[in-house]
Amino acid sequence: MAADKIETIVRLAKARGIVFPSSEIYGGSRAAYDYGPLGVELKENIKRQWWQAMVRGREDVVGLDSSVILAREVWEASGHVKEFTDPLTECLSCHKRYRADHLEEAYEAKHKHAPEHGLADVNCPNCGVKGQFTEPKQFNGMLTTHLGAVADGSGLHYLRPETAQGIFVSYKNVLESSRRKIPFGIGQIGKSFRNEITPGNFIFRTREFEQMEMEFFVRPGEDEKWHEYWIQERFDWYTGLGVSAENLRLYEHPKEKLSHYSKRTVDIEYRFQFGGNEFGELEGIANRTDFDLTTHSKASGQDLSYFDQPNNERFTPFVIEPAAGVNRAMLAFLLDAYVEEEALSAAGKMEKRAVLKLDRRLAPIKVAVLPLSRNTDLSPKAKELANNLRRNWNVDFDDAQGIGRRYRRHDEIGTPFCVTVDFDTLEDNAVTVRERDTMHQERVSLDQVETYLATRLPGC
Amino acid sequence: MAADKIETIVRLAKARGIVFPSSEIYGGSRAAYDYGPLGVELKENIKRQWWQAMVRGREDVVGLDSSVILAREVWEASGHVKEFTDPLTECLSCHKRYRADHLEEAYEAKHKHAPEHGLADVNCPNCGVKGQFTEPKQFNGMLTTHLGAVADGSGLHYLRPETAQGIFVSYKNVLESSRRKIPFGIGQIGKSFRNEITPGNFIFRTREFEQMEMEFFVRPGEDEKWHEYWIQERFDWYTGLGVSAENLRLYEHPKEKLSHYSKRTVDIEYRFQFGGNEFGELEGIANRTDFDLTTHSKASGQDLSYFDQPNNERFTPFVIEPAAGVNRAMLAFLLDAYVEEEALSAAGKMEKRAVLKLDRRLAPIKVAVLPLSRNTDLSPKAKELANNLRRNWNVDFDDAQGIGRRYRRHDEIGTPFCVTVDFDTLEDNAVTVRERDTMHQERVSLDQVETYLATRLPGC
Repeated sequence: MAADKIETIVRLAKARGIVFPSSEIYGGSRAAYDYGPLGVELKENIKRQWWQAMVRGREDVVGLDSSVILAREVWEASGHVKEFTDPLTECLSCHKRYRADHLEEAYEAKHKHAPEHGLADVNCPNCGVKGQFTEPKQFNGMLTTHLGAVADGSGLHYLRPETAQGIFVSYKNVLESSRRKIPFGIGQIGKSFRNEITPGNFIFRTREFEQMEMEFFVRPGEDEKWHEYWIQERFDWYTGLGVSAENLRLYEHPKEKLSHYSKRTVDIEYRFQFGGNEFGELEGIANRTDFDLTTHSKASGQDLSYFDQPNNERFTPFVIEPAAGVNRAMLAFLLDAYVEEEALSAAGKMEKRAVLKLDRRLAPIKVAVLPLSRNTDLSPKAKELANNLRRNWNVDFDDAQGIGRRYRRHDEIGTPFCVTVDFDTLEDNAVTVRERDTMHQERVSLDQVETYLATRLPGC
Repeated sequence: MAADKIETIVRLAKARGIVFPSSEIYGGSRAAYDYGPLGVELKENIKRQWWQAMVRGREDVVGLDSSVILAREVWEASGHVKEFTDPLTECLSCHKRYRADHLEEAYEAKHKHAPEHGLADVNCPNCGVKGQFTEPKQFNGMLTTHLGAVADGSGLHYLRPETAQGIFVSYKNVLESSRRKIPFGIGQIGKSFRNEITPGNFIFRTREFEQMEMEFFVRPGEDEKWHEYWIQERFDWYTGLGVSAENLRLYEHPKEKLSHYSKRTVDIEYRFQFGGNEFGELEGIANRTDFDLTTHSKASGQDLSYFDQPNNERFTPFVIEPAAGVNRAMLAFLLDAYVEEEALSAAGKMEKRAVLKLDRRLAPIKVAVLPLSRNTDLSPKAKELANNLRRNWNVDFDDAQGIGRRYRRHDEIGTPFCVTVDFDTLEDNAVTVRERDTMHQERVSLDQVETYLATRLPGC
């Protein structure tokens, strides 16, 4: 896997309606992306799997959906107004802007050691001129907007750069209404916004993105044990959905680079292989301690401590936060599932085929129904079958081009099963079901197709 | 149903974790709301039902998920920068700001005729002073933000006030990648933002809200027929999910009040009974003609016309748009499902009970598992059952308080089935299943519970 694999995925994503550049008819240059008919299903399936694994399927976690635009005080108390900054620098020669830390990291990845004199040793990635950078300035990463009809500064608000704060400020309401006891968690999926200086690498870093975050509230002193537990759980979530463990690694944040709220952070990284960096962050699992509840308690004047009845003890819970990116997860699933291999064509020739070996639960289309030809007897029968199956799954009815081309197309988008309605169907009332990975074909009677597929598509 | 029913729902929503005021610990005054553990499930179920009915379950509609922040040119071309305005007025006496059109509509609802002299006849709803309003100014309803690290105006962008434009600008990419033929539609669910002058009425009008929109592309001349079709489909969607037809009505927009893009718009209204208005908009179904594709084609220089192969004809499609609000739908479902009735208690007394008779597909929790008492034999058995059922549905394990209180609590949040594990269970390996609406109880053997529930929870 290398840079050209990413390019293959970008091309495939656009051609097949998975991901397009946003506003492309107007140039689409803002490094924002829209998710097409297949992309929206794939993304939705990832979110459903996360929600089932992290919220609905667990007795100790509940869900929440808080606003993108919270009260301004939230971001002042959380430290984001002061601390959520990146070091911004500009090349004096070509005036392109960069994150100084990214420039130094790229240098380090290439030379296997940090630049001795900081930016003075670094060449501009755009124009190549060496060391001509402005002194880095701290640049706040929150997008702002103004609410209300008043023109003065009173309407200033922030678009959330993380969903987590919405959880902390609603923590008390959730606790009281849901009758939970510690340890318990609150999970949330939603969009966040960051004014990235250098968005890029396809859907890896965009200004608008989706997060799947869970804040798990525990007794102080039990935080380290729970941190280990969640690191393992989250690693297993990716491998359980088919990501090869060899393409994942854990990265321990050095103590001196921890975020202002963190006692310890471990990232799950995926072998994205962008530019000089082999691995990139997929998910961060942080021990946020009692930082957030304590600061919001002080700033709001509300008591956010917890009374532990059995032990007759009051404390402010510590928080373990597994925070995943939907879009990064999607990119990792796509990269990891994509394979090019040799296969025997319908005509008996060895041909190259591209297959997206996605876990069946993630595949955007579960079943393709293919009439062998556009025939007045076959087409209605195939359409009827497709409409029946559509009650359970996302189904594609596809009668364009030859059957071989259609098999290849569905391999390429990861459809687990192709069901072909052929001329024999009119005689034997049966269809041919082809499985994506093995290409094994089986004759199944029409009244058994739904059951046949249901046993092979559990949890879909 | 009246104003006090809304207040009952607001109280219930907060107490039970359906909807809380956002950032409440900081005062929570911005008319924004967070969706708690039950609210996020209810909202998700509404969206799943819409997606199944409008996208996944249909062969002629595909999905999309476009960005909140689109290129600025999109909103210039669409007419939103110029036309997406509300008439803003201010009471000279108390300085409260209003939408002039809302003030006049409220007058008309009360007096059964329009104010003869416009705002001069209207009393300020805040301070009561009559006719002391500033000349209405056009106020743009789009929220703005700035992207990038440059301080000049070049980074100005808009948060989308509707998801529809994202569909129009990606129309060509979707058409080409998904091999669709007209008539076909593109559906999308997502957040939109509007700088409302007077947000209010709970989750009915908020600055941040969620839409479920579908743009259906048809041959010009067939637009009126399709418009009728979608009005009927959408009306049936609400009644099919349990909303009483008597609480719905169709409202035809007068020709002179149509939006700049519309040939005809029909709203589906619900009997919300806010203030003086009996009905309020739930969903708008507009005939947008070829307005959007034509303007984007002109502004972008891209050909967005459609070539109809069988008829050898080129045209710009007309568009029918059913545009629903997730939050308004949720409020309507809650209001319509809420009933207070007399019922026989476990102790044989007639008692008042509150029931949320939500369609089972919408209910946030499908099954509650209740051990009769906190007992070392019953609790593990009940927990095990809850964990098994959790693989299929959202399940609550509830062992707080007496069984009668727990039945009432689950009635109030609309849980269709309560499964009670009692001391007999240890002997007969069976449980009591109670249905919410009829309160009918049935003894079901433990190994049959899952099947029993599955047949009664289709599509859940």
